[in-house]
Amino acid sequence: MSYEFLLWIALILLSTKLLGLMCKAINLPEVVGALLAGIILGPSALNLVSVNGETGSFLTYAAELGVIFLMFSAGLDTDLKELQANIGASFVTALIGVIVPLLGGTLCYGLFFHENFGDYDELLKSIFIGVVLTATSVSITVETLREMGKLSGKVGTTILGAAIIDDILGMIVLAIVSSMKDTTVRPSIVLVKILLYAVLIMILFVLCGRMEFVIEKADHKRRVAIFAIAFCFILAYVSEEAFGIADITGAYFAGVMLCRSKIKDYVDIKIHDVSTVFFSCIFFASVGLKVTLGGMGVRIWGFALLLALVAILSKLVGCGLGAKLCKFTWKESIQTGVGMISRGEVALIVAEKGRQCGLIDEDMFAPVILVVIVTTLVTPILLKVAFKERGNKPVEAEV
Amino acid sequence: MSYEFLLWIALILLSTKLLGLMCKAINLPEVVGALLAGIILGPSALNLVSVNGETGSFLTYAAELGVIFLMFSAGLDTDLKELQANIGASFVTALIGVIVPLLGGTLCYGLFFHENFGDYDELLKSIFIGVVLTATSVSITVETLREMGKLSGKVGTTILGAAIIDDILGMIVLAIVSSMKDTTVRPSIVLVKILLYAVLIMILFVLCGRMEFVIEKADHKRRVAIFAIAFCFILAYVSEEAFGIADITGAYFAGVMLCRSKIKDYVDIKIHDVSTVFFSCIFFASVGLKVTLGGMGVRIWGFALLLALVAILSKLVGCGLGAKLCKFTWKESIQTGVGMISRGEVALIVAEKGRQCGLIDEDMFAPVILVVIVTTLVTPILLKVAFKERGNKPVEAEV
Repeated sequence: MSYEFLLWIALILLSTKLLGLMCKAINLPEVVGALLAGIILGPSALNLVSVNGETGSFLTYAAELGVIFLMFSAGLDTDLKELQANIGASFVTALIGVIVPLLGGTLCYGLFFHENFGDYDELLKSIFIGVVLTATSVSITVETLREMGKLSGKVGTTILGAAIIDDILGMIVLAIVSSMKDTTVRPSIVLVKILLYAVLIMILFVLCGRMEFVIEKADHKRRVAIFAIAFCFILAYVSEEAFGIADITGAYFAGVMLCRSKIKDYVDIKIHDVSTVFFSCIFFASVGLKVTLGGMGVRIWGFALLLALVAILSKLVGCGLGAKLCKFTWKESIQTGVGMISRGEVALIVAEKGRQCGLIDEDMFAPVILVVIVTTLVTPILLKVAFKERGNKPVEAEV
Repeated sequence: MSYEFLLWIALILLSTKLLGLMCKAINLPEVVGALLAGIILGPSALNLVSVNGETGSFLTYAAELGVIFLMFSAGLDTDLKELQANIGASFVTALIGVIVPLLGGTLCYGLFFHENFGDYDELLKSIFIGVVLTATSVSITVETLREMGKLSGKVGTTILGAAIIDDILGMIVLAIVSSMKDTTVRPSIVLVKILLYAVLIMILFVLCGRMEFVIEKADHKRRVAIFAIAFCFILAYVSEEAFGIADITGAYFAGVMLCRSKIKDYVDIKIHDVSTVFFSCIFFASVGLKVTLGGMGVRIWGFALLLALVAILSKLVGCGLGAKLCKFTWKESIQTGVGMISRGEVALIVAEKGRQCGLIDEDMFAPVILVVIVTTLVTPILLKVAFKERGNKPVEAEV
């Protein structure tokens, strides 16, 4: 065993908190500080901490637990009535929020590298860049809204619902586009899996409502928290392994299933403690730690910056439009659009799948990474601006 | 990334808690259940979870964090006056508790394999088996005493103090015996390192007392908890890497340094939450997961059982005698002796070092592992018996 990991974790805990405090002092969300801490500790700057090797692999797993806890906690915080009231808005937001970036990414690639536009393979490549831009990652948004105490409100609930639907629509689009190039990908199987998953979630949701009497009998709350976490992990595992649906989506559903329970508040506090004191720091830092830019030519830099701009505008416009169509106010529509901007590891995973079936060239990876960084850093800042109330400061939750 | 680890953690959390509850129902300490859970999940029985491979390596690291949190928390719970009052008793207990097992192990090996006893190399091997038996591992004792609410009492404090001194005495003995075979090991350097370490700990202890005003200024407790954990991790890392002293000893000292602080209770609760809900379950299970017996011949089995008996009796008698010499009552002396019985990963590490310099044969590993299992399982059970008060049940802390 290499004891280095103790030092690495200490560095991550200290730097995420210190930079978080500094960001708070200049009125930025703390999560921006945590992201910057990762970039500073990682290969882009000091190179003190790495996500490679055995110790790095520990950090990667711990970070995954961090984002699972984050989404589980967001599920527990769900206001079910709010979710039901806004499920339509979530769907429309997600749908238009997938279509606009898909078109935006396709056009962006097609127009920038227009010399080959007529070619079928090049067309598929253009479309695939669009597919990469469809994947929203709301973990940063969740943390920012929680900091501001806005997570379980109308906009927060709509964003979370839209993110889940976005994840599923993204999978469908990915399967369809991949199947145009790779004949082993069968969109019909993906659709069947999604339907089966929906059935499973419904059944579990009903069962969890009926199981409340078991929880009432339990005399010991801490034990209940452990069982709740185990349930969340199992559902996350099953989602990913059996249905190909993101583990964090499973964790969110696990939270929603338990959000009606009487022990919800207790479990939430315990998980928030485990998560805030430890895992979420590692998760946010690890996002920054994965950043390795460099070796990009001028033309690719130009494309990368354009793509980042398209990524921001297409989600903002697409999701904002969706919300507006569902009779949100302009302010709420902008808040919803902003909350959906950030792309995370999902964009990288989609890009990796594209590489495997030859739909993305090697030199497109750096632009995709830049999109992830820019959208991730921009989202919490824009969210804070979008939620700013005239005259009085927004209420801040304890973080 | 393999998502298997989510399932493994869920299995560990569920089984440690369920078996813990079952043990409690038959009046055994819960930690026995957690240890059994590991044995059942591991290669000895169901073989569902493994400490090998990438996922297994995550469990190994998480388990190490578990025992670090455990010792840090034990440090935080320290009653300084009690520690000062019993430091002499701790020292005598540790000293005699090192000498008796050293002699016991040497004689046990020497008499059992007496055909080669005249040989110098065989004599060294005999002595090395004694060295393996000196290493106490009190994490199981700490958890059991905590369950019974006896951790910061006279006996608990003496055991913790003795365990630290035992660790240091064990290092000295290991260095001396190794140097008889391996000329690259220099006992003088080990002694100098220990002295320097003692100076460092003293300085930090004084500094931490003076730093209290900084903590008083801090407006935010959760942040303080994160800084305290980072401090603990750094000290654990420095202990191990710079001084060759166990990381958990460093973690314990970090706890002792902060035990006078006003925020101590808050930090302790937060750490206990992180630890109990997650890391300590993984640690206790991982002890059982490492058990892989099998392939032992009848003679080695005989030796292994004899060695386990010697391991139990030598610590019980040695440490008990030490405590009795320091005017503990008979009951307190037995409690102290019982608390020092368990050997943990330290015994395995010492055995591994012995293998590296040719002082332990391959076929001695299985007996050492058996000693670890038997002493680990026996300690919490004997502790519960030793602390039983006539007539009324002992007070149990919430776990």
